[in-house]
Amino acid sequence: MLLSNSFIPVLKNNPSEAKIKSHQLMLRVGMIKQASAGIYSWLPLGFKVMKKIENIVRQEQNKIGAQEILMPTIQSSEIWKESGRYEDYGEEMLRITDRQNREMLYGPTNEEQVTEIFRSSIKSYKSLPQLLYHIQWKFRDEIRPRFGIMRGREFYMKDAYSFDISDDEALYSYNKFFLSYLRTFKKLSLTAIPMAADTGPIGGNLSHEFIILAETGESKIFTDKRIFELNSDDTNLEKKSLDNMRKKYEQYYAVTDEKFNKEKFEKIVLEKNRLITKGIEVGHIFYFGDKYSKAMGASVDLPGGKKDFVKMGSYGIGVSRLVGAIIEAKYDEKNEIMKWPLSVAPYDIAIIPMINKNDNSALDKANNINEELIKNNIDTIIDDTDENFSSKIKKMNLIGAPYQIIIGKKNDGDLLEFKETGGETQNLPLNKIIEIITKQKNSI
Amino acid sequence: MLLSNSFIPVLKNNPSEAKIKSHQLMLRVGMIKQASAGIYSWLPLGFKVMKKIENIVRQEQNKIGAQEILMPTIQSSEIWKESGRYEDYGEEMLRITDRQNREMLYGPTNEEQVTEIFRSSIKSYKSLPQLLYHIQWKFRDEIRPRFGIMRGREFYMKDAYSFDISDDEALYSYNKFFLSYLRTFKKLSLTAIPMAADTGPIGGNLSHEFIILAETGESKIFTDKRIFELNSDDTNLEKKSLDNMRKKYEQYYAVTDEKFNKEKFEKIVLEKNRLITKGIEVGHIFYFGDKYSKAMGASVDLPGGKKDFVKMGSYGIGVSRLVGAIIEAKYDEKNEIMKWPLSVAPYDIAIIPMINKNDNSALDKANNINEELIKNNIDTIIDDTDENFSSKIKKMNLIGAPYQIIIGKKNDGDLLEFKETGGETQNLPLNKIIEIITKQKNSI
Repeated sequence: MLLSNSFIPVLKNNPSEAKIKSHQLMLRVGMIKQASAGIYSWLPLGFKVMKKIENIVRQEQNKIGAQEILMPTIQSSEIWKESGRYEDYGEEMLRITDRQNREMLYGPTNEEQVTEIFRSSIKSYKSLPQLLYHIQWKFRDEIRPRFGIMRGREFYMKDAYSFDISDDEALYSYNKFFLSYLRTFKKLSLTAIPMAADTGPIGGNLSHEFIILAETGESKIFTDKRIFELNSDDTNLEKKSLDNMRKKYEQYYAVTDEKFNKEKFEKIVLEKNRLITKGIEVGHIFYFGDKYSKAMGASVDLPGGKKDFVKMGSYGIGVSRLVGAIIEAKYDEKNEIMKWPLSVAPYDIAIIPMINKNDNSALDKANNINEELIKNNIDTIIDDTDENFSSKIKKMNLIGAPYQIIIGKKNDGDLLEFKETGGETQNLPLNKIIEIITKQKNSI
Repeated sequence: MLLSNSFIPVLKNNPSEAKIKSHQLMLRVGMIKQASAGIYSWLPLGFKVMKKIENIVRQEQNKIGAQEILMPTIQSSEIWKESGRYEDYGEEMLRITDRQNREMLYGPTNEEQVTEIFRSSIKSYKSLPQLLYHIQWKFRDEIRPRFGIMRGREFYMKDAYSFDISDDEALYSYNKFFLSYLRTFKKLSLTAIPMAADTGPIGGNLSHEFIILAETGESKIFTDKRIFELNSDDTNLEKKSLDNMRKKYEQYYAVTDEKFNKEKFEKIVLEKNRLITKGIEVGHIFYFGDKYSKAMGASVDLPGGKKDFVKMGSYGIGVSRLVGAIIEAKYDEKNEIMKWPLSVAPYDIAIIPMINKNDNSALDKANNINEELIKNNIDTIIDDTDENFSSKIKKMNLIGAPYQIIIGKKNDGDLLEFKETGGETQNLPLNKIIEIITKQKNSI
């Protein structure tokens, strides 16, 4: 892609209205544009990143056997009255009256709607478990939307719902999502830690938030820092393996401030292991048993002939928020260098040719290199503008393709100036560069 | 995929509330579920088809150099007041007041929003042309929503917008979209004919609707039937080639009833070539010059130093509607046989084993075949339920994978009972079946 053809409106300076670095960077390189308070358009650069995140989330949901559906954004108030949450939800719910004077709303979450789908479709325990998810826009009418897409009003979220015959089976489903979340965040190059959390308006008695560390985070966290050394690489989808994974993570104290108990923290966690810091919530899972199924009459026939309400959980990942969260975790604000994880990078590599008047040789070279890269499925952006060289490099450091090839005056035969964005320059031939990137892509 | 694990709630009979065959079939095989009047949830089967359609639409937009963005569903009334359409749009616009008493609305279309993005980002003719598109949910508060997702209130649409420096360049962009629409519908196995159309509330003086023939269509069409023999296979993205394509299509009379002129029709079209029938609108393109750019002040610097308002067009494809339109075009209602085009089929092939009590041999065989098919990237659904054989076949004929393997009592060595859904049975070895399907997939 040539930069001159692309719709990437870059600003010279940081926008003054943005208070945190993800919001600054996203406005600065034209990833998003505000439409109104807390509501954003996604321009091509931001859209590409969000779509890649969405696809990773989707793949990991599919791997645990969850099936994708798509519920509408506009819901009827009826089902919310059945569950009893219509009044509870307060002013954060965007309430709408249609032309027939029906009470509608823009869904902030979908427990009611999915329960309604389930109860009219599934009648027997034989059809359980069911894991359903969708990736859809939600709306919460925040009184003070802020931090760009990190706390917007219209946001993109994956929410999944599990339906099981018993508590035991339901916890099995819960643990599957627990694993899929660890895998999802790992693919995004994020270290997300599951923390015991309050259930809030969703309800239930078991809940984990997945938190990544960031100074700008809104969640205060208290943890045994050894939890950061854990991983789920050996876990599979068997019940026992998943149980062990949960136990492994739960051996360490790790809570957000809502659940914090100073006495307990200091008793359980040795001083040298204590970590008190801030983080960003990127996922949240809940087990709430029959809270919705009972209120809404979602029951199935049991083996013996009786009926029982299904046991449900719900599982959310903030897809649009993750774009900002990755920036918060990865952006070197001081040096103005963003290096996207290759799995979600808007481009794999940037080619930056020095273009002088009446001399297009560097641009021609860039185009030739690009052709080779395309053949190898490597997605490129070429800065073909005639801006001065240093401002081109500065701009590409912000756009954040994880690799760069710089084509300056020096002509070093077949060797190219290649670097990881923000790293040291190496002189390498093109085939070696292709090898490095391809290897890295295949390891995702 | 095993049918017993999947969320495909099939009804025994046609639902009485559905009046046209696409609505009937979609409810019957659990592709969609109504949430409220004119608002639907997409269940896994319907979701898969819609997603495949969306991806074909996306690919063809990308091929003409359009860049994907994503604008929000909720818009501010401000920009609609600027364009003058806020009052004009009437009750079909879903108007919303947020908690701060701001006038918002659920976007029925995006001319204003994209013009606002353009004017704040692009300042020079050097950055033109720009072709931007997004695929997003829209809402039109129809007084009488009907025919399921064919005329729903919340619907999924691809809308694109072009920005050019002159009428001439703008018509070049118009023709690019014209071509991409012909290609898109062809990939969906639809014969869509471009017809001169009124511009309605979008405005402008040049417009084409893309219409597929269907008795249940809401558009009455009058055409020279020789237009159905045309194709765009030899057209490329050069200006001249696109001009010739437009001329080729426009040599034949083809209009919807809004533009119909009886005298002209009978004068231009020989009686033997006249076709008066009904169709479904699946795409609509508009050229409206500076209607929005002038009202909203979207201008660019010209080469000589002056400024001018950009010339714009807009281009819509009804992604959710296409699911229904394909059913209207392809479903054999009398014999209850649906055969999805392979490019958008929810599964490539259905395996239907006869399962008797205490005899799982047919199911084992089905699973073995499935493993081979998976290795060859062929997506399968196996009916592993213990329903009787004829109702299994009936159900799979409705679900509509384009190929079937039937595993009955007969054991014919390595030969399998294979057919195109609704076609004649052939006895073929598995490797031959794989070859047939793979060849067909590669030709899409």
